[in-house]
Amino acid sequence: TNQFDPKEHPHRRFNPMTREWVLVSPHRAKRPWQGQEESPDLSEKPAYDQSCYLCKGNTRINGEVNPEYEGTFVFTNDFAALNEETPAFEQNDPLFTLAAEQGSSRVICFSPDHGRSLPELTEQEVLGVIDTWQQQCAELAEKYRWIQVFENKGAVMGCSNPHPHGQIWAQNQLPTLVQKKQDSFSAYFAEQGSNLLLDYAKRESTDGARTVVENDDWIVVVPFWAAWPFETLLLPKFAVTRMTELNDQQKLTLADALRKVTAKYDNLFQCSFPYSMGWHGAPYDGDIHDEWQLHAHFFPPLLRSATVKKFMVGYEMMAEAQRDLTPEQAAERLAALPDVHYKHR
Amino acid sequence: TNQFDPKEHPHRRFNPMTREWVLVSPHRAKRPWQGQEESPDLSEKPAYDQSCYLCKGNTRINGEVNPEYEGTFVFTNDFAALNEETPAFEQNDPLFTLAAEQGSSRVICFSPDHGRSLPELTEQEVLGVIDTWQQQCAELAEKYRWIQVFENKGAVMGCSNPHPHGQIWAQNQLPTLVQKKQDSFSAYFAEQGSNLLLDYAKRESTDGARTVVENDDWIVVVPFWAAWPFETLLLPKFAVTRMTELNDQQKLTLADALRKVTAKYDNLFQCSFPYSMGWHGAPYDGDIHDEWQLHAHFFPPLLRSATVKKFMVGYEMMAEAQRDLTPEQAAERLAALPDVHYKHR
Ligand SMILES: O=P(O)(O)O[C@H]1O[C@H](CO)[C@@H](O)[C@H](O)[C@H]1O
Ligand SMILES: O=P(O)(O)O[C@H]1O[C@H](CO)[C@@H](O)[C@H](O)[C@H]1O
Repeated sequence: TNQFDPKEHPHRRFNPMTREWVLVSPHRAKRPWQGQEESPDLSEKPAYDQSCYLCKGNTRINGEVNPEYEGTFVFTNDFAALNEETPAFEQNDPLFTLAAEQGSSRVICFSPDHGRSLPELTEQEVLGVIDTWQQQCAELAEKYRWIQVFENKGAVMGCSNPHPHGQIWAQNQLPTLVQKKQDSFSAYFAEQGSNLLLDYAKRESTDGARTVVENDDWIVVVPFWAAWPFETLLLPKFAVTRMTELNDQQKLTLADALRKVTAKYDNLFQCSFPYSMGWHGAPYDGDIHDEWQLHAHFFPPLLRSATVKKFMVGYEMMAEAQRDLTPEQAAERLAALPDVHYKHR
Repeated sequence: TNQFDPKEHPHRRFNPMTREWVLVSPHRAKRPWQGQEESPDLSEKPAYDQSCYLCKGNTRINGEVNPEYEGTFVFTNDFAALNEETPAFEQNDPLFTLAAEQGSSRVICFSPDHGRSLPELTEQEVLGVIDTWQQQCAELAEKYRWIQVFENKGAVMGCSNPHPHGQIWAQNQLPTLVQKKQDSFSAYFAEQGSNLLLDYAKRESTDGARTVVENDDWIVVVPFWAAWPFETLLLPKFAVTRMTELNDQQKLTLADALRKVTAKYDNLFQCSFPYSMGWHGAPYDGDIHDEWQLHAHFFPPLLRSATVKKFMVGYEMMAEAQRDLTPEQAAERLAALPDVHYKHR
């Protein structure tokens, strides 16, 4: 046939936030895999592990003892990538540009229970995590312009401890990816007179082809320009620029959306589904940012099964991201799964 | 102390080609690692493996039989990410932009010998690989504007077959990363009246602090803005925009530089050192591109040992690349290693 078909023919899609393209090669999903296999996390973990440095009452590597916490517990990273006291310094040369950076890195334990990750926590417990994100952002915003809330889940995503936890890194400069988004959101707002991600959420909600989870306030889609096989974008359906601006009702519906998308992820290959997730919103610079919309990304590496991931290597590192199934195919599979965790059915 | 010290204090460095920053947190190298361990490739491989689909005389998955080749062997990827016959199509919408892409994907076996990778080939055999890259580029340039030559080495880099081989993907659009470089090289040329990478090579050659290998024509450095722990940049010290323009003498000195840097890599942790490498040069669009300079990147993932790699995850995916040792520290270690392969000493 001579008719272009996005489910069959290689094509590129454009990410309007990063202004980067993704090469989509749908038919390549059929190739056999003889390469590296990952070790999926299928273990049942105890509620308390005496060798875990995040469990309550245990001693960390630097000698500090964790409190007997309930709910969440936040502490400064024992090997922080950013420090408050770094002396100021700048070197400006077109080929050798360098700038000192001040900041803070914190760890957030989501629960004292060593064995339950986000989708296995109760709605109230997930709400507690959201409250903690909000409080941490409010506190760090007094000192820093950018606050990066994120979670690395699973050994394959560089997480060295299965105890459910995330991180917050705060700093003054806008990181590279955030600056790109700032530029794209501003340009779209200037050109269209509206908010890029609010417009996008509305169109995805109407279309439905890439929707994975949706409730009154939030929608989770496999974005049209997804790079990772089962990547999702969590968007509010109302205008909100920062984590600190969410009200109680919006946090409750957010807990619902978070539990559902992460349960679907675990259900996909019946394993603890690895990913990196993180939040982006307007910088805490005192300005009104009508061009910004709060949102979260999930970047999960698995492709075919609990043991075969997508490698972003050669072509991807030298040229651009490449994917083997269409975003619509990924969304269809995720949407069809139950939103209750397989261990709890 | 209140004096900024790049070996001690977190700072950001600017990549003038991609215009992206890298966060450098030198002290973080001290943290213990309790996370995922890789399986290093320490095996001795036979010169011929009857189950290998790249060895001579063997049958590939699609039924084709490899010839009894000597030197290199090139064929079209059995599961190509790009095809010649894709029908043209474009969808332009600020939020849903899509464009069909035509192209070609080929595999290059570097040698019939299953057991020897680039640093273990003779200088003449490496020269044969360079000749093949050059011929392939000349041939594909008649049809395509962009030709991406690359190699994924090692299971951890998504390589599913240890037989020494690389790939070439050709297409008409400039991929995302290449377009960024095009913009940066053009802007630098317009502002400074000179070539960015030629200027950079001269300054690195004079400085020496980041030099890993250098001969009459080529210099290999850990770039000032390296993201991966032992990332290197291979630069010509003379003006040359494309692979197809190298003369015999320059190819011979290139074979020397390639063998030396890859031998140092294997020597670092005494294993077959995984990486993705690839070539960038001026597009094959018929124009003169004085702003471009041919160069190659090596992106190797290992950080501390043959089993512990750097994870580019959470913060890196949401914000910007982060590294734990300075480029100067990495260069010093690589420079100090012998440039003869440990198996051949
Ligand atoms: O073509 P291969 O070697 O099977 O596949 C490998 O290289 C490709 C190009 O970088 C990647 O897209 C794949 O994820 C990787 O596994
Ligand atoms: O801080 P952690 O969990 O020890 O480390 C993990 O997350 C960091 C932030 O994304 C990464 O830089 C590390 O490579 C990864 O192993």
